[in-house]
Amino acid sequence: MRILKEENIEDIALGAAVLGTGGGGDPYVGKLMAREAIRQYGPVELYTLDELDDDDLIVPAAGMGAPVVLIEKLPAGDDMINAFQALGKYMGKEPRGTMSIEAGGLNSVMPIYVAARLGIPMVDCDGMGRAFPEIQMTTFTPKGITASPFAMADERGNTVLMDTIDNKWVETFARSIVVNMGAEGMIALYAATVKQLKEASIYGTITFAEEIGKTVRTARVSEENPVDAVRKIVNGFLVFRGKIGDVDRRVEGGWNKGTAKMDGIDQFEGQSLQLDFQNEHLAVQVDGEFVATVPDLIAVLDSETGEPITTEALRYGMRVAVIAFPCAPQWREPDALKLAHPRYFGYDVEYVPVEERFG
Amino acid sequence: MRILKEENIEDIALGAAVLGTGGGGDPYVGKLMAREAIRQYGPVELYTLDELDDDDLIVPAAGMGAPVVLIEKLPAGDDMINAFQALGKYMGKEPRGTMSIEAGGLNSVMPIYVAARLGIPMVDCDGMGRAFPEIQMTTFTPKGITASPFAMADERGNTVLMDTIDNKWVETFARSIVVNMGAEGMIALYAATVKQLKEASIYGTITFAEEIGKTVRTARVSEENPVDAVRKIVNGFLVFRGKIGDVDRRVEGGWNKGTAKMDGIDQFEGQSLQLDFQNEHLAVQVDGEFVATVPDLIAVLDSETGEPITTEALRYGMRVAVIAFPCAPQWREPDALKLAHPRYFGYDVEYVPVEERFG
Repeated sequence: MRILKEENIEDIALGAAVLGTGGGGDPYVGKLMAREAIRQYGPVELYTLDELDDDDLIVPAAGMGAPVVLIEKLPAGDDMINAFQALGKYMGKEPRGTMSIEAGGLNSVMPIYVAARLGIPMVDCDGMGRAFPEIQMTTFTPKGITASPFAMADERGNTVLMDTIDNKWVETFARSIVVNMGAEGMIALYAATVKQLKEASIYGTITFAEEIGKTVRTARVSEENPVDAVRKIVNGFLVFRGKIGDVDRRVEGGWNKGTAKMDGIDQFEGQSLQLDFQNEHLAVQVDGEFVATVPDLIAVLDSETGEPITTEALRYGMRVAVIAFPCAPQWREPDALKLAHPRYFGYDVEYVPVEERFG
Repeated sequence: MRILKEENIEDIALGAAVLGTGGGGDPYVGKLMAREAIRQYGPVELYTLDELDDDDLIVPAAGMGAPVVLIEKLPAGDDMINAFQALGKYMGKEPRGTMSIEAGGLNSVMPIYVAARLGIPMVDCDGMGRAFPEIQMTTFTPKGITASPFAMADERGNTVLMDTIDNKWVETFARSIVVNMGAEGMIALYAATVKQLKEASIYGTITFAEEIGKTVRTARVSEENPVDAVRKIVNGFLVFRGKIGDVDRRVEGGWNKGTAKMDGIDQFEGQSLQLDFQNEHLAVQVDGEFVATVPDLIAVLDSETGEPITTEALRYGMRVAVIAFPCAPQWREPDALKLAHPRYFGYDVEYVPVEERFG
């Protein structure tokens, strides 16, 4: 167990935004909420799975919706607590702790808010090791841990609980409800025992995010290029350096969907890149050829500061670097790969691990 | 208390379809389900409110969705029980009985199914004295009885529970979910104590429906015209006799919406009628003038047999009579009238009680 204080939050939110691959929520919003919670309710205890009892119930906490709305409409806080507590009440068992369902600027730190406010442990693991746009896309799904029962709350005081036959139905129902809620809802889902999480979760995501964040921060005040520093720590590859041209973005079905185009600079002069996203980055094509796709991670970083740029922050004229890096090995197992295969998102291509293309 | 047996069902479903004003579900489907339940689980005890304890919890049971789908997709039965029991479990209190939320061929008898199968009382009252297309449109809403907590289940085994700040939010969320479910869901809602129901409900709706049904059935084998017989027992007025021409019908937002046109026959020769509906009949215009609107009841009856015709059964060439009759007086109180005023449905007209136009 280690203690997370206000000063840890900045690095976690920054590094988690790299792992969020364009989604997972805005790090600035996440940072504000988590910091304020620690200031008001005290520091948070971050546990490893081994430090908890196998029977302990852990309930992940997150925000759901279109990131572009999540920036403009700060989570109220009470909505997150309402969803979390509604789920515990429905299950008739007090959650022992909380955790992130995905990595991301908001969704990695939302559980810090819950842990601080309720005075419960946070567990250092998650269900993706990255962010994904749909609820069933977790390493839990292939292991039989269900998103349901599922709780969702808005800032008005509405709560919706779902008990479904599979994770896809949670996604279907919750997506409708989040649209009704104004493209933003706070959710509690994938309740699991520590024993289940030992088998199905991705370990140490918070600590890894913090390391990435620290690396970027340190590189900024050293000789090292922050983009290179990030690329190294995530075992990634430089895909492109370019200037953002057209960005076509829309809110559809409670997601940010769209495409960004870039013109190459430096060694990529003369090449052009297309980046598609659905909250998270889905695929990158350079000169019409796919060079990286889900489930591998694609991050867009400010070319100077290494700051990860979320899909809603992509703007014409920004100079950026695009890096790609391997997903957690769990995603490459057949049952998991089906959930997040490029074909699921409508791309008629095979999945080729990023290190096979660039390594 | 009186006993409802298989032989009561036919009249109840038929009469309730008259009160259903084109909606409330198909009487044939309702009849089948209720009869089968009584055959399998035994007769149902129908109570008046006075025969129960003031503290008893009563949970209405109903089907929600587009009637046109409800015909093709018979409720599974388990879905209704799942919704009913999920609500009781969520509230932490065993419901003492069930009741209809609205009158209608399906929704008047759905609680008979629940009562038979669970062996609990059914109460002889409802929340409309007719049918309406949106959840907040009950005589309960102005009296502060909330549709929430609200449970909804489909035949696949999915259950959704909602706890909302007002009845309009239940309608919003539930309408999305029912669309996801394929325009059909079974619901439990407006849980209330007997004490609350004494103030807010409409008494004796099941018994009234049974009387109407019996009247039609008896008229069919006597000299009396069944349409006249219905008109008399509901204190109604003959609005039109005609032949159905164009029917424009669509499933939209989980409702049947549309318009039927009719050409007058007999004393209405030369006149034309337009009937608008949203699951239920909303308004009738004759030669472009509104002659009856919600919240008053508008029924379309087969001109020979008096059989009520639901909106999904309207067909070109049918010869029908249109009658209109006064809603329960509760609907004319200001807070209730707002909920079901013609303006709410987009008609820029005042509400004129039907007896003032025709009386």
